[in-house]
Amino acid sequence: MLEAAQSISLNANQIVSYDVVLCDNIMDVVSKCVDFDAEDDTNTVRGVFVDAGLPEQFKRHFLEKLSSIGAHYVATEVPGDEENKVLPEVLKVVKQMNALGVKRRSAPCIVIGGGVALDVVGFAASLYRCGVPYIRVPTTLLSMVDVGVAAKTAANYLGYKNRIGTFHPAALTLVFPEYLSTLPRRQISNGAGEIFKLAVIKDKDLFDTLDHYGPTFISARELYSDETKDIILRSLNGMAVELENNLWEHNLQRVVDYGHSFSPLVEMTYINELLHGEAVTLDCLFSAILSFNRGHLSGEELERLFNVANKLGLPTFHSGFADIPLLERALKDTTIHRNGSQNLPLMDGIGSALFVNDVSSDEIQRASKLMAQLSTLFKLLKNNINLDYK
Amino acid sequence: MLEAAQSISLNANQIVSYDVVLCDNIMDVVSKCVDFDAEDDTNTVRGVFVDAGLPEQFKRHFLEKLSSIGAHYVATEVPGDEENKVLPEVLKVVKQMNALGVKRRSAPCIVIGGGVALDVVGFAASLYRCGVPYIRVPTTLLSMVDVGVAAKTAANYLGYKNRIGTFHPAALTLVFPEYLSTLPRRQISNGAGEIFKLAVIKDKDLFDTLDHYGPTFISARELYSDETKDIILRSLNGMAVELENNLWEHNLQRVVDYGHSFSPLVEMTYINELLHGEAVTLDCLFSAILSFNRGHLSGEELERLFNVANKLGLPTFHSGFADIPLLERALKDTTIHRNGSQNLPLMDGIGSALFVNDVSSDEIQRASKLMAQLSTLFKLLKNNINLDYK
Repeated sequence: MLEAAQSISLNANQIVSYDVVLCDNIMDVVSKCVDFDAEDDTNTVRGVFVDAGLPEQFKRHFLEKLSSIGAHYVATEVPGDEENKVLPEVLKVVKQMNALGVKRRSAPCIVIGGGVALDVVGFAASLYRCGVPYIRVPTTLLSMVDVGVAAKTAANYLGYKNRIGTFHPAALTLVFPEYLSTLPRRQISNGAGEIFKLAVIKDKDLFDTLDHYGPTFISARELYSDETKDIILRSLNGMAVELENNLWEHNLQRVVDYGHSFSPLVEMTYINELLHGEAVTLDCLFSAILSFNRGHLSGEELERLFNVANKLGLPTFHSGFADIPLLERALKDTTIHRNGSQNLPLMDGIGSALFVNDVSSDEIQRASKLMAQLSTLFKLLKNNINLDYK
Repeated sequence: MLEAAQSISLNANQIVSYDVVLCDNIMDVVSKCVDFDAEDDTNTVRGVFVDAGLPEQFKRHFLEKLSSIGAHYVATEVPGDEENKVLPEVLKVVKQMNALGVKRRSAPCIVIGGGVALDVVGFAASLYRCGVPYIRVPTTLLSMVDVGVAAKTAANYLGYKNRIGTFHPAALTLVFPEYLSTLPRRQISNGAGEIFKLAVIKDKDLFDTLDHYGPTFISARELYSDETKDIILRSLNGMAVELENNLWEHNLQRVVDYGHSFSPLVEMTYINELLHGEAVTLDCLFSAILSFNRGHLSGEELERLFNVANKLGLPTFHSGFADIPLLERALKDTTIHRNGSQNLPLMDGIGSALFVNDVSSDEIQRASKLMAQLSTLFKLLKNNINLDYK
């Protein structure tokens, strides 16, 4: 018999470093892809995973440029739509990695596409042989400013958004803003939704810029302006600062969770109607009303929020936010996610956050009602620029 | 247009700490399970995952003891056999975690069982909400000295052992050696295989102890002796030291990979015949012959290895190690796993390792032939204690 409990303590320290690099031409993108942790053996075949939703011409162009610098690769399509952000698609990528004999440290696979494609391939890369490196080339504004800098990979499961996933950031992310020119305006607005979130909860200057520059920003012709570049960089930096200090989310009070408390379940429920950035924006506005009702936001500030969302081509209302039982279920699941406390980020004026743990069912009902009223009012009063949004 | 590439670097530092605690009675085990990161809310329901292969009486005993200290739990069976160490079983556990509303930081789930059960639940815990904590209670010698201290979780996939997995160690592992009394002798030998590996590659004193104490060690009556306890602790410590310095395997020259170069594919090919510790032992002997043929091990040392394996009730030959194409495919896959170099640990005398990158097909053939001859010789010369091994 043992006389007393004896124990062994293991303590290890993991340093995770990764870069997000803005590139000004396509040759810069492909050469950085190929040169990163390359092998001496120039015949090494690289796995390239391409978002099936990208225009054909676009895919061909990227692969031709890869060939032009002597890269050997096998290209495989991966899904780009939220409904296919599921484990079977992740496993198809694992299977392909295994077939290609992808190694554990060098010659990383490359994924080019939107957030779903990046998540699916990132998830696969985290599972195959307990993790191999990969390189991300985001092609949408949303994936540039959100997934492109994030550490998490994910798939939807059991009707819940990102219910399974891993912490496995890409070794390198290459942002090439010229890709934005291929996007429909709704996709630009979608990405602007995550920038809007960051602005309202932690960056008043960025919010002022969006207010001033909104209509220009979502106009594809202006995507290469210095202002656009500044907005993207400022947004990336804002996310990076928040992530760097809390990469593995040991602290569950995260300002970047603003707009992500009620929206995950609403987005999954209306998966065919709402894009991620749209659902996030709606949650931002709903949470702003909760803040307003508690006296943390003035009426003028709330009005500015609706105005700027509108300028960015983003919705200010959706029936999901009139569905009280859905909102209550969403908050309940979010509370589990935040370890039993709401840890709900609310606005404390524009650009500042506070956290609360006691939002009641009654408050949700009142906020929902006010959101519908405000949105109706806006549709009456404002010159709604969001005409091509269904 | 951007003038030049601009980049953002993210640098984050994660400290991972976990304890492996030896317990001397069952009440110590259950109270440590329940007290670890417990919640104020005493009604919190804990997820308990129980190896389906455990004897009924044994399961009931553990759950009764949990109840006796006022724990609320829902118990769910998980598979314990290697053939079911697959992703669909992992997902069943994720589904149950979701149904139970398992939180992200507190009141961790508990898994009690052998290595497969621990791996399946650990893998699920790593995926659900990008990772929740869990507590391991290993019940076999193998899982106590191997999975019980390891950081990796895994499932078999595409016919390959542990082809998918994650780094996600249990927050706490509770080793209760009394559980060994329920094990058939073959399972004790199976666990001894991993201890044997550690001894031959890095701990000559442990090897001498196994040599002297082998037959007693695998006799269940002697499992609570001080020597047994010392062997388990020494083995745990040996693994812990190797893991602590290289937890995420950034260095692919790992002495603990000894015995794990050819065996993974042999084990998967003969999944119904070979247990993990048996396959590892066979690989240890095969690799020792490679060392002997290169002059890194004397004939006397090689003979001692066969002797000690024999004393521990472990096999010294299996037809898988006569299958040259299988061994070659195994080394090829292991080379991919080690980033394109064999990084093959060989013995450099008993208790020391060296790494080589140039083992040839010819060497594999010669070693395979010698292994068959040596094993036959041993069966003739030695009093084979391994009678109940088929």
